[in-house]
Amino acid sequence: MVGGGPDAFIGAVHRMAANLDGRIELVCGAFSRDAQKSAQMSQQLNLDASRCYPSYQAMFEAEASLPAGQRMEFVSIVTPNHLHFDVARQALQAGFHVLCDKPATLNLREAEQLAVIQQQSGCLYALTHTYTGYPMVVAARQLIKQGELGKVRKVVVEYHQGWLADTSAEAGKQAAWRLDPAQAGVSCCMADIGVHAANLAEFICDDKIDLLSADLNASGERLLDDDGVVMLRFASGARGLLSASQIAVGEENNLRIRVYGEKASLDWSQQAPNSLKLMHADKPFETLRSATATATALGGITRTPPGHPEGYLEAFANLYCQFASQVMDFQPNQLQPASLLPGIDSALRGMAFIETVVAASASEQKWHKLADFSQTSDQGA
Amino acid sequence: MVGGGPDAFIGAVHRMAANLDGRIELVCGAFSRDAQKSAQMSQQLNLDASRCYPSYQAMFEAEASLPAGQRMEFVSIVTPNHLHFDVARQALQAGFHVLCDKPATLNLREAEQLAVIQQQSGCLYALTHTYTGYPMVVAARQLIKQGELGKVRKVVVEYHQGWLADTSAEAGKQAAWRLDPAQAGVSCCMADIGVHAANLAEFICDDKIDLLSADLNASGERLLDDDGVVMLRFASGARGLLSASQIAVGEENNLRIRVYGEKASLDWSQQAPNSLKLMHADKPFETLRSATATATALGGITRTPPGHPEGYLEAFANLYCQFASQVMDFQPNQLQPASLLPGIDSALRGMAFIETVVAASASEQKWHKLADFSQTSDQGA
Amino acid sequence: MVGGGPDAFIGAVHRMAANLDGRIELVCGAFSRDAQKSAQMSQQLNLDASRCYPSYQAMFEAEASLPAGQRMEFVSIVTPNHLHFDVARQALQAGFHVLCDKPATLNLREAEQLAVIQQQSGCLYALTHTYTGYPMVVAARQLIKQGELGKVRKVVVEYHQGWLADTSAEAGKQAAWRLDPAQAGVSCCMADIGVHAANLAEFICDDKIDLLSADLNASGERLLDDDGVVMLRFASGARGLLSASQIAVGEENNLRIRVYGEKASLDWSQQAPNSLKLMHADKPFETLRSATATATALGGITRTPPGHPEGYLEAFANLYCQFASQVMDFQPNQLQPASLLPGIDSALRGMAFIETVVAASASEQKWHKLADFSQTSDQGA
Amino acid sequence: MVGGGPDAFIGAVHRMAANLDGRIELVCGAFSRDAQKSAQMSQQLNLDASRCYPSYQAMFEAEASLPAGQRMEFVSIVTPNHLHFDVARQALQAGFHVLCDKPATLNLREAEQLAVIQQQSGCLYALTHTYTGYPMVVAARQLIKQGELGKVRKVVVEYHQGWLADTSAEAGKQAAWRLDPAQAGVSCCMADIGVHAANLAEFICDDKIDLLSADLNASGERLLDDDGVVMLRFASGARGLLSASQIAVGEENNLRIRVYGEKASLDWSQQAPNSLKLMHADKPFETLRSATATATALGGITRTPPGHPEGYLEAFANLYCQFASQVMDFQPNQLQPASLLPGIDSALRGMAFIETVVAASASEQKWHKLADFSQTSDQGA
Repeated sequence: MVGGGPDAFIGAVHRMAANLDGRIELVCGAFSRDAQKSAQMSQQLNLDASRCYPSYQAMFEAEASLPAGQRMEFVSIVTPNHLHFDVARQALQAGFHVLCDKPATLNLREAEQLAVIQQQSGCLYALTHTYTGYPMVVAARQLIKQGELGKVRKVVVEYHQGWLADTSAEAGKQAAWRLDPAQAGVSCCMADIGVHAANLAEFICDDKIDLLSADLNASGERLLDDDGVVMLRFASGARGLLSASQIAVGEENNLRIRVYGEKASLDWSQQAPNSLKLMHADKPFETLRSATATATALGGITRTPPGHPEGYLEAFANLYCQFASQVMDFQPNQLQPASLLPGIDSALRGMAFIETVVAASASEQKWHKLADFSQTSDQGA
Repeated sequence: MVGGGPDAFIGAVHRMAANLDGRIELVCGAFSRDAQKSAQMSQQLNLDASRCYPSYQAMFEAEASLPAGQRMEFVSIVTPNHLHFDVARQALQAGFHVLCDKPATLNLREAEQLAVIQQQSGCLYALTHTYTGYPMVVAARQLIKQGELGKVRKVVVEYHQGWLADTSAEAGKQAAWRLDPAQAGVSCCMADIGVHAANLAEFICDDKIDLLSADLNASGERLLDDDGVVMLRFASGARGLLSASQIAVGEENNLRIRVYGEKASLDWSQQAPNSLKLMHADKPFETLRSATATATALGGITRTPPGHPEGYLEAFANLYCQFASQVMDFQPNQLQPASLLPGIDSALRGMAFIETVVAASASEQKWHKLADFSQTSDQGA
Repeated sequence: MVGGGPDAFIGAVHRMAANLDGRIELVCGAFSRDAQKSAQMSQQLNLDASRCYPSYQAMFEAEASLPAGQRMEFVSIVTPNHLHFDVARQALQAGFHVLCDKPATLNLREAEQLAVIQQQSGCLYALTHTYTGYPMVVAARQLIKQGELGKVRKVVVEYHQGWLADTSAEAGKQAAWRLDPAQAGVSCCMADIGVHAANLAEFICDDKIDLLSADLNASGERLLDDDGVVMLRFASGARGLLSASQIAVGEENNLRIRVYGEKASLDWSQQAPNSLKLMHADKPFETLRSATATATALGGITRTPPGHPEGYLEAFANLYCQFASQVMDFQPNQLQPASLLPGIDSALRGMAFIETVVAASASEQKWHKLADFSQTSDQGA
Repeated sequence: MVGGGPDAFIGAVHRMAANLDGRIELVCGAFSRDAQKSAQMSQQLNLDASRCYPSYQAMFEAEASLPAGQRMEFVSIVTPNHLHFDVARQALQAGFHVLCDKPATLNLREAEQLAVIQQQSGCLYALTHTYTGYPMVVAARQLIKQGELGKVRKVVVEYHQGWLADTSAEAGKQAAWRLDPAQAGVSCCMADIGVHAANLAEFICDDKIDLLSADLNASGERLLDDDGVVMLRFASGARGLLSASQIAVGEENNLRIRVYGEKASLDWSQQAPNSLKLMHADKPFETLRSATATATALGGITRTPPGHPEGYLEAFANLYCQFASQVMDFQPNQLQPASLLPGIDSALRGMAFIETVVAASASEQKWHKLADFSQTSDQGA
């Protein structure tokens, strides 16, 4: 693990997700640029002190020199965003598979470079778009794939939070860097959560946003967006709508998607993730529930019987599960089997989405093209 | 009553709304162009046969010649939309107050003419934007007026139905005229329900849409929109988003509005109309319930204790109640007291909204100005 | 109408329910023992002053002497409870059909006398167990009748209110008489709402409570129950559970019933009355919605399309609708057609339920038999 | 760990719960009476083969002989129920702290013996009444403790499942032993889930059931109850109601509790565990949400920000967290600090509850006394 020192939030989430199923063991780390903090974390985690490294560079070098059965099998990147690119780059170049916290990089240019590096390395790369780990999200995708909805006509996705509503809140560490262009890049809200919403829509519909029009908003004196709306047109012809906000007072982490097809429609909400509403034209709507026989037949990983709620950490753990399986099944120099895990292609699309939305919002022209990177396979080796 | 013959849907709704409180008595009508149908309706309603008229022209003439205590006190217009303008015009010119089913006219030009005629007539005019009759909608407006939310930042309003999802459904009478430009004008979905959503947003926030950008959609071979998205900028600076659809399979009459302010936020849904969610930044969200002391203090008409659901017909009846009060309190040649009832100004804005959205959708330019008619007071005599 | 003077609550509800569909016209009344108040009400309702009577006795006599086409067709009883019996008795004996607010009488003995009188009179009698008027309640009954649930195993019905939670609240008029044994009889909570819950369970399941065990509770110094629990065994073998409370702080009018069968289960809640949850063993649960094709096929009266909420007043109006139809179809000296409207049999069972529950609560013996009056047909003439 | 072999369900849940926070490491086990299966499990978990024991007796003996820093620190018991007593007994006698899956023993007599042994051993004992680990359950308890509700008047707790609805389902392994008196003791439904509901009610209210009356039900040819209702009277004077069912078709794991106090009321549901409804007499009801500042101030362990759902496994992990803290803070021969973790007292009460309910159901007498073991402190050393 790179990053995830004593004060970090997302590092702890990654460790819980990795721990949950007992399939993954944390064996080494460079938890902080501050050697003392790194050691403190290492001790707290009961790691072998010799495998607590002063830097990720040192870690990759030392681990690469260990015998195969002993060295770490993959790298988890949970540093601040601006380091994601360099850590991933060096890990891949040192021959390690990479699981990286979102966003993949700071901008599209870096993502394009990383895609090239990953392809050259032949290593696996996965990006933690957590929401794709929810079993009912996988079920939703499968229902659409099976034609249950018919042709999709309209997609409404929204991701509303309220924690940046107070414009005097920049004092907080989490708020400060996200609203600082130097650390966060061109966008706050769209980069932090809008891109999750876009990814979710594309994932569930197995479709791509083709054109978009946007109106972003920055409250008070802020330099980056904390709210915005995007009109979407998908490659398939479906229309869509994305709303993201971090100033929606009282909202916690309200990610919701509705997909309206010619024959049926879907409604899923992250805050009640174990239900999926399936609406029909001419009969009562149904509510599919996680871990039931119906849901299980549609894919998705669950650990407990119906009615025992699983949540965010389980969804996160599902990404680690899938990545662990990929790593175990990995055959160098061969085509990797298809996976639902977001990979380098999601990294590229995410960065392109953010940059296009920001440009579109600033423009007087209505529609803007979102670049397509589909020639790059998601997990191509 | 003009219109509302034996097969009509909305005429029956108006009659139930007028009946509910026992304050209004239907005394005469021209229910259909077909004299036999009109007579049949009149009989069914136990009206005095002599006051069942062959045409609205005949009705206005005959009733106007009756003594004051005997003649009808106002006209309810529930004809097909393309007649609304002419019936309202003639009623006002004959000196009768008018309560008209939405939309006021077929286009903005007619609405502008009607505004002039109404002003000259000195009579009352009201438009049944039903959803403004719900007590929790009135409460929402009052909360914002009182500053409970602080400055409004973002408004999300959506109105989703699914009944036009089947593109072979045009056979049905209700669908057929709505999708026929000759009978429905320039828009189907935006004219039928989008305009309700826009009106609701302006009503609750006491704000006006200033700029908009739109993307409308017509399924299959249809000539008019059956779905669409509009990005909004309000006069106050608030941003907004409006989604309307008649092809959202499985949706019934899903009108919902969320208003996010600097200090608090609101969430109201027409299908569960007796609750209003009030979200705060730093304490648990509250659910205000219709007919409780808290809600009653915020205005809105209710008839039963908390927990006894009131619905659409009661909301409709609330408009009739308010109009009955206006009629009873009416003083000719005097300024009418302020009212929440949508009047001629709502008629103008509604028509302008529809035409602007249709034009914006067809345009490559992002933002379009929505005309403001605020110099026209809503109930000015 | 007997009762329903200027201050009365339920009288106004009855009038709105009767008005809604325009099929029933209020033609005469004895609204109050206070002649002035009665006249005031009469005027307010625009009645012919000559048909505002000083007493119900006078009304029955005068109206009976009018020619058939002119005299009132049925009597609505909305007096305080202790008068229900005598008004109904005299109305029936004068040859008028009776629609009576619940409870039918003050005790079982009166109900038994009334049953005899009604049978002798050959007139119609209906009791406003309002909740049986909800369309989804009718649908629930029909689903069970059709065998959709298989044999019913367990019924859970609860009716929770909070308005009597404050034991200093007796000052209020509504509270005071309900908690006074002289005016309310042997029970407050069970007589006021528990009996609705029992009626609903028997209505939906088309079953009868056979044995019961009870634990009633009276807060503070109260002489009558304000809360209680009843264990039920039905004639069919199904088990059940009834909880009623008027001290459940924060509850409004929370009547809910769940019926668990061998194959499927139902869940309905009065505060969200337009939905009916249908749960299956091996597939996703469905939510049936009022006014949809599915619901309409199961019976129940609705007036608006799906998604336009109907509520308590519409349910009440449905009882009036059914009674109006019975009155119009009435053939003296003939067997009346079956009806879902609660009749004299419900009056008997209701009173027996209340008295048995009170006795059971005071007893150390576990099970108590609830008398069966099934030989008395519900609408037998 | 004792039990939790390759086919076991609850063993896996315990391991995930123990893993989640990375504070607990599984070091040894006797996973199955079948040595091969045990070894298979050990291997799967990457344990040191030398610490995979053929029996729990062997494990306790061997581990006890290891130096303090090396031997296991506590025992997790996840065997079939009939072994819980003997494993716990031997573990305590060997000087190991015990965390035992519910139920503690097969009957009250064993529980009483175990209480004596635990007291003599001076070791810690905890019982996994999982639902007490939910943060909003802890918050509910704290709200009542702080007097937010005033004196509690009524408690309604229900636990409905449907998985035993099909009476031909006994073939399944989970169903078979639960319905076999030889393996499950005197009760199926009450022992399996009713006791959780009773524990939850006592935990949240910090009160004790004093008297009860019960009606249990066994479908088809079953020898043990699969459904039942219990009327409750608490030591504080509060009344209550408990319904448990495993034949409630379509219910998953529907545990819900409502507590009505003199001033306010609570409503919590296990299937939406991150919300807690707080109802007031005279103001809108509030919904407290997990991980918010309000909830955090009331206690309870959470790992993610508001809006990131935590569920059953996190609740389970919270019990492990608390036990890990107890073990780390353990001071032999000293009074242990108070803890919310269910201990030997819960074991005694649980067994007494089950046996009393079964006896009460079979009796014609209404009320039955539930033994109180309060002299035994929950964690007394």
